Amino acid sequence: MGKNRLEAFSDGVISIIITILVLELKVPHEAGLAALKPLWPVFATYVLSFIYVGIYWNNHHHLLHSTQRVSASILWANLHLLFWLSLFPFATGWMGENHVAATPTAAYGFILLMAAIAYYILQRAIVSQQGPDSLLAAAIGRDWKGKASPALYLAAIPLAFVNSWISNGLYILVAGLWFVPDRRIERALSRHNGAEHR
Amino acid sequence: MGKNRLEAFSDGVISIIITILVLELKVPHEAGLAALKPLWPVFATYVLSFIYVGIYWNNHHHLLHSTQRVSASILWANLHLLFWLSLFPFATGWMGENHVAATPTAAYGFILLMAAIAYYILQRAIVSQQGPDSLLAAAIGRDWKGKASPALYLAAIPLAFVNSWISNGLYILVAGLWFVPDRRIERALSRHNGAEHR
Amino acid sequence: MGKNRLEAFSDGVISIIITILVLELKVPHEAGLAALKPLWPVFATYVLSFIYVGIYWNNHHHLLHSTQRVSASILWANLHLLFWLSLFPFATGWMGENHVAATPTAAYGFILLMAAIAYYILQRAIVSQQGPDSLLAAAIGRDWKGKASPALYLAAIPLAFVNSWISNGLYILVAGLWFVPDRRIERALSRHNGAEHR
Amino acid sequence: MGKNRLEAFSDGVISIIITILVLELKVPHEAGLAALKPLWPVFATYVLSFIYVGIYWNNHHHLLHSTQRVSASILWANLHLLFWLSLFPFATGWMGENHVAATPTAAYGFILLMAAIAYYILQRAIVSQQGPDSLLAAAIGRDWKGKASPALYLAAIPLAFVNSWISNGLYILVAGLWFVPDRRIERALSRHNGAEHR
Repeated sequence: MGKNRLEAFSDGVISIIITILVLELKVPHEAGLAALKPLWPVFATYVLSFIYVGIYWNNHHHLLHSTQRVSASILWANLHLLFWLSLFPFATGWMGENHVAATPTAAYGFILLMAAIAYYILQRAIVSQQGPDSLLAAAIGRDWKGKASPALYLAAIPLAFVNSWISNGLYILVAGLWFVPDRRIERALSRHNGAEHR
Repeated sequence: MGKNRLEAFSDGVISIIITILVLELKVPHEAGLAALKPLWPVFATYVLSFIYVGIYWNNHHHLLHSTQRVSASILWANLHLLFWLSLFPFATGWMGENHVAATPTAAYGFILLMAAIAYYILQRAIVSQQGPDSLLAAAIGRDWKGKASPALYLAAIPLAFVNSWISNGLYILVAGLWFVPDRRIERALSRHNGAEHR
Repeated sequence: MGKNRLEAFSDGVISIIITILVLELKVPHEAGLAALKPLWPVFATYVLSFIYVGIYWNNHHHLLHSTQRVSASILWANLHLLFWLSLFPFATGWMGENHVAATPTAAYGFILLMAAIAYYILQRAIVSQQGPDSLLAAAIGRDWKGKASPALYLAAIPLAFVNSWISNGLYILVAGLWFVPDRRIERALSRHNGAEHR
Repeated sequence: MGKNRLEAFSDGVISIIITILVLELKVPHEAGLAALKPLWPVFATYVLSFIYVGIYWNNHHHLLHSTQRVSASILWANLHLLFWLSLFPFATGWMGENHVAATPTAAYGFILLMAAIAYYILQRAIVSQQGPDSLLAAAIGRDWKGKASPALYLAAIPLAFVNSWISNGLYILVAGLWFVPDRRIERALSRHNGAEHR
């Protein structure tokens, strides 16, 4: 099975998720600026989730770029990742509507954690298909970002009950870490291409 | 007519269906964990339907993989399948919101049954275009899974009025049967490719 | 500009329209079969609109199949068609929710009429780019279906105020006429290919 | 990284945005024509936003047409543009539901302004990758439309508090300016192709 349709399907689901997020931003019935004020936490969480989904799309793109064939386990690992991503609008809406209260903030961290784990499983499924000496395995290397992210989410979940802004700070921090796309893979690929062209 | 645009359109519709499912999971207005409790049957049916739509996408992918040309009857059989899949969010929402009550559980089984029949019709349309000696016909073989599934759905519909958990157990069982993607086609294809390469 | 991205964008919009239609089918809060009864006109109009959108997708596919380059006028004619198609969920919901009352039925006919006119304009834009001796021009021929449909919609609009079932009968009739995909184009293309291969 | 998946993802998001716009057009519960009357400002803003999103899709298409490789900065500039486009349904709904009141009209202008700036940033990112002597840089030239549009939006925002119809007139004017697709790029490309073929 080629990867094209898997990419197309994932792109479809991710583009719907990123657009459905905005539906939590309910149109107010009043016309004044004051009507927008209660929306700002919803808007802020919308921006955060938009960036997260953008990062996932971006890294997903890089991850599949290096693969050619898609096995059944890759396919289900991919659906598993899409499942947790599909809960982003719910978690975002809950956190935003409740003005970053403790439990919704912890729940948001839980969804982030599960998506990170699902991404890790997908990565492992692709690496195990390509073998430990593959380009992707080399590109990922020690994968400190992939390991630090779930650890930070895991810390953020209980911290939400201390102060939910600490947790949100951690979510923003992790988003910042990943904002730079996975240059490791890009670099390894271009090194590889460079080597080939020599 | 090539199959590319049919695949793209089907991928689009299926990716929207799988994402729209989550909209039945309404964001609660309260912030406590207690607010999530009434959502669990909606969440559980969401997971089940997500897996079902994933299975359909997966098998649809395999089915079309082996075809090259798309006739008018294949096109309409495909739209017919998409029609029943499009009712998944409705059936899922009804069953989830009513805590797996008898009638919604039976209705869910009815939609599963109709989708299974639609898939069978699509399969027949593709096989009849390719002829009884085709690769796909050989791959499908006796098609016990394709025959057992509607039988189990058919049993689950009246059983919902006895105990709706029996029906849901059957739905989970069928999902489990199909979870393993249609390896018959994969196997036949790789055998075929192997033979060609010899 | 190639036609691929135009097709992809149109497929995206049409697949969302066909799936959004189902959102008008609101999940009832009660669990009994009686709760489904008031939904049947919504369901029936959903089926009708699903078939109409399916027909448009199908014919759109055939229409663009014969074109290679996309001019600005084709692009805007295409967006114009998508605009009227995007009003299908609204018109369907209004007609369904009001149990096929006179005004919503007439409004539904108006949307069908405008979509038919938009399709005609798109067809003309493509033919005028390819010239009157083109394959597509020959394939369309006298285009009796393309001319009969708006005439029937035009009749159905005032007739909705006499009896809305007459109008709905006409809508079903036109859908039936188009259900058979545009074989004229298929036939002309295969004749053309046949001639080339000789 | 190739541009295909970026185009596919952008097409997906833009096609969902253009279709989600229509969801603000709530189906009325009454059947009479009078029930449509309060909807006309929502409908009018829907038409305006549909045209705007259509223009963005069109120009986006032309912009990416001339690029081959996608760097990380192009990718994020593209997501930034999609972010502001994703707020169109919200801004459209707010303006339409409040009958073009001052603040929502100004907010609509703000979203238009931010989308125009985001488009400009994306254009710069692509030009800076291709170099100042590139085809795209030549095609864009002095870019008077790209500079006039934000200036007009900027004027429209405070003018909304004088008379919101002036602002809406300006929005319609800018849409009219862009309605003609970016022929500069088309012309430069065909000149280039012509030169090559000589």
